[in-house]
Amino acid sequence: MADRQATVRLVEESEATGRVAAIFDDIKATKRIDFVPAIWRVLATNPAHLDLMWTRLKAIMHPEADGGTSRLDPLTREIIALAVSATNGCSYCINSHTAAVRKLGLDVEGLGEVMAIVGLFNSTNAIAEGYQIEPDILPPLD
Amino acid sequence: MADRQATVRLVEESEATGRVAAIFDDIKATKRIDFVPAIWRVLATNPAHLDLMWTRLKAIMHPEADGGTSRLDPLTREIIALAVSATNGCSYCINSHTAAVRKLGLDVEGLGEVMAIVGLFNSTNAIAEGYQIEPDILPPLD
Amino acid sequence: MADRQATVRLVEESEATGRVAAIFDDIKATKRIDFVPAIWRVLATNPAHLDLMWTRLKAIMHPEADGGTSRLDPLTREIIALAVSATNGCSYCINSHTAAVRKLGLDVEGLGEVMAIVGLFNSTNAIAEGYQIEPDILPPLD
Amino acid sequence: MADRQATVRLVEESEATGRVAAIFDDIKATKRIDFVPAIWRVLATNPAHLDLMWTRLKAIMHPEADGGTSRLDPLTREIIALAVSATNGCSYCINSHTAAVRKLGLDVEGLGEVMAIVGLFNSTNAIAEGYQIEPDILPPLD
Amino acid sequence: MADRQATVRLVEESEATGRVAAIFDDIKATKRIDFVPAIWRVLATNPAHLDLMWTRLKAIMHPEADGGTSRLDPLTREIIALAVSATNGCSYCINSHTAAVRKLGLDVEGLGEVMAIVGLFNSTNAIAEGYQIEPDILPPLD
Amino acid sequence: MADRQATVRLVEESEATGRVAAIFDDIKATKRIDFVPAIWRVLATNPAHLDLMWTRLKAIMHPEADGGTSRLDPLTREIIALAVSATNGCSYCINSHTAAVRKLGLDVEGLGEVMAIVGLFNSTNAIAEGYQIEPDILPPLD
Repeated sequence: MADRQATVRLVEESEATGRVAAIFDDIKATKRIDFVPAIWRVLATNPAHLDLMWTRLKAIMHPEADGGTSRLDPLTREIIALAVSATNGCSYCINSHTAAVRKLGLDVEGLGEVMAIVGLFNSTNAIAEGYQIEPDILPPLD
Repeated sequence: MADRQATVRLVEESEATGRVAAIFDDIKATKRIDFVPAIWRVLATNPAHLDLMWTRLKAIMHPEADGGTSRLDPLTREIIALAVSATNGCSYCINSHTAAVRKLGLDVEGLGEVMAIVGLFNSTNAIAEGYQIEPDILPPLD
Repeated sequence: MADRQATVRLVEESEATGRVAAIFDDIKATKRIDFVPAIWRVLATNPAHLDLMWTRLKAIMHPEADGGTSRLDPLTREIIALAVSATNGCSYCINSHTAAVRKLGLDVEGLGEVMAIVGLFNSTNAIAEGYQIEPDILPPLD
Repeated sequence: MADRQATVRLVEESEATGRVAAIFDDIKATKRIDFVPAIWRVLATNPAHLDLMWTRLKAIMHPEADGGTSRLDPLTREIIALAVSATNGCSYCINSHTAAVRKLGLDVEGLGEVMAIVGLFNSTNAIAEGYQIEPDILPPLD
Repeated sequence: MADRQATVRLVEESEATGRVAAIFDDIKATKRIDFVPAIWRVLATNPAHLDLMWTRLKAIMHPEADGGTSRLDPLTREIIALAVSATNGCSYCINSHTAAVRKLGLDVEGLGEVMAIVGLFNSTNAIAEGYQIEPDILPPLD
Repeated sequence: MADRQATVRLVEESEATGRVAAIFDDIKATKRIDFVPAIWRVLATNPAHLDLMWTRLKAIMHPEADGGTSRLDPLTREIIALAVSATNGCSYCINSHTAAVRKLGLDVEGLGEVMAIVGLFNSTNAIAEGYQIEPDILPPLD
């Protein structure tokens, strides 16, 4: 778990005040976890950016928290996050979103299906680019 | 649509014979389309590789075709493919998977949600890497 | 070597049975190694996907094992794998393919040549994209 | 072929003088082509950088031109360049290196083998990252 | 300029109303341009996401517009955006940010310096990853 | 700090002779540091490539050292390097360039601005690609 060292100091929950403290509380309540994940403690070194990122992430990933609706269920949203993170090879993000999909009920076999699809299309992506294949005709989307 | 030129000649459906013709037919039947997408016509320049790729893609993306089951529904599977392709910026693949998710019922607003999530986590991925954030503790997955 | 923690449990060789055990044996025999690399032990959590991946990898990377032929020699094939892995920054893969090219006879200076080429073209790739350079005319490939 | 528009004006061969003209001649002689590829005409907008890039590329990709030697043959070197470019999805670069490997004798089936390997390991890279697999033990390289 | 076809319909400025029209006006005023760039017209298919993205972009890239301050000048901020876009190979983004840095006074030679640096570090990045080089000791950042 | 193991032996400063020793000295003098960073000690396993890379990096990143000039100040140049490295997720490089920007005076809040911009445009890049948005009209750059 000590595979890298953050390049800035993480803000402790105990030292947060004002807007930062309020966001830390909202993160724990919204995500139903009992600690503030490291990425938010790093972003807290710049409170304005912490606010912008949390506002955006909450609106996109937790629309139900504010009475909103979504065409995608929570597990599907986390699966997309995991697929993006695996494609980019972001360790922190992969760990975080794997924990989230597990909590939402995906088992090992289901995770295997997600990884198989991620692997498959990273393969076809490289081949389609490598051959410079022209797109098939796509009817316009209303 | 003429944004690039494939670096090899595409195999015409009319010239396909034997195993290639059988795979072309299977692609159209399985995907319920009336043409063979360009990537398969390119892969047909090497029939053994066409066979390997189609066998794998059919098993992963169309398990129902052979009586199999999946923990993920067909739309979720295509959404993963689209998320990977958007992250990689593969034009051919993005066009293809956008067409597929539309056919499976995702509307413009739903596509907007997928893209918002893809955009959001490409953002957090870069930030988590840029700060070299250590993973939070992740309980082992059975 | 403990720079990350797999998000799923690796299947032990001693607990493998049936198709998984047969693939584990085939991996060791084909690659002439006396252990099953971690990626195969992870894929074994989903036997069907293990089978699909090993079948494809064996056909592409070890065609001689089944009496097939290839236009590329084994070292060239592993060098391509290493070039892709270095470009993607995949630690597990880089370690694995570096070990493979060494076993096939590439020395430190040769590895240096591969890395110099990989570094050079990651540079030109970014520059060609950054200036949005149009392709030179490419005659069609038969 | 008009899939993008370079963001800067390309320097014409006829307007090159001094060091730029000498490099343009050297490029054509070393690569045995009768035109200066677009990337060099763009780099010529900054003669110092043109010089640095060509000096490096010539040393790495054409060591024989200055009486040097290499552990890798010219086709293998170009295959590495193509594998990197396909992985990155750089259109200009893919077109250029595909033309180069063809000129060096790789046929359509051989190109298919290269693409199959590139596709395969972009797949395994994503899966190894997606599961955060720890490296197998790698003996030190002298 | 017709190198690709957006997968959704762009919202026309003339059909925008309410919050979308207000954002369109703010984009033109803040960026001092007389048209709404395509990415905002696409995002307008989902007004809530348009709002989130514009709010975030305006705060980060145009802090002066709301009386804020920044440690980075506007040209440096756009150069970072261009460096990211060139590294990712995003055509739309490269064109947009190249136009922006030009408008802010960077000439062709200066653009050449940016591209040389972007190319150089995409090179060293691939080499550092390819050799799996351990980080040098970095003193903690307060 | 032991998150990965270099795949080749690093050349010790004490064992460097001739051209390698001269470059090691030049690196320390030019960068005003008292040790040779690991990437140069790895590149030293192939002295010719060490020479090519250092010559290029010194010319691009330290033009003042040889009496040259640049349109970009040293901090802006290192910020570009950091933006590229964060986008690629290269741990070694991120640590190195974070140390460099700090030494050049960027504080934690300034680093936060850089990361916010890097994160923002990795987001818009993925969205622009995901929707396959056509470039806005860009006037030619002289």
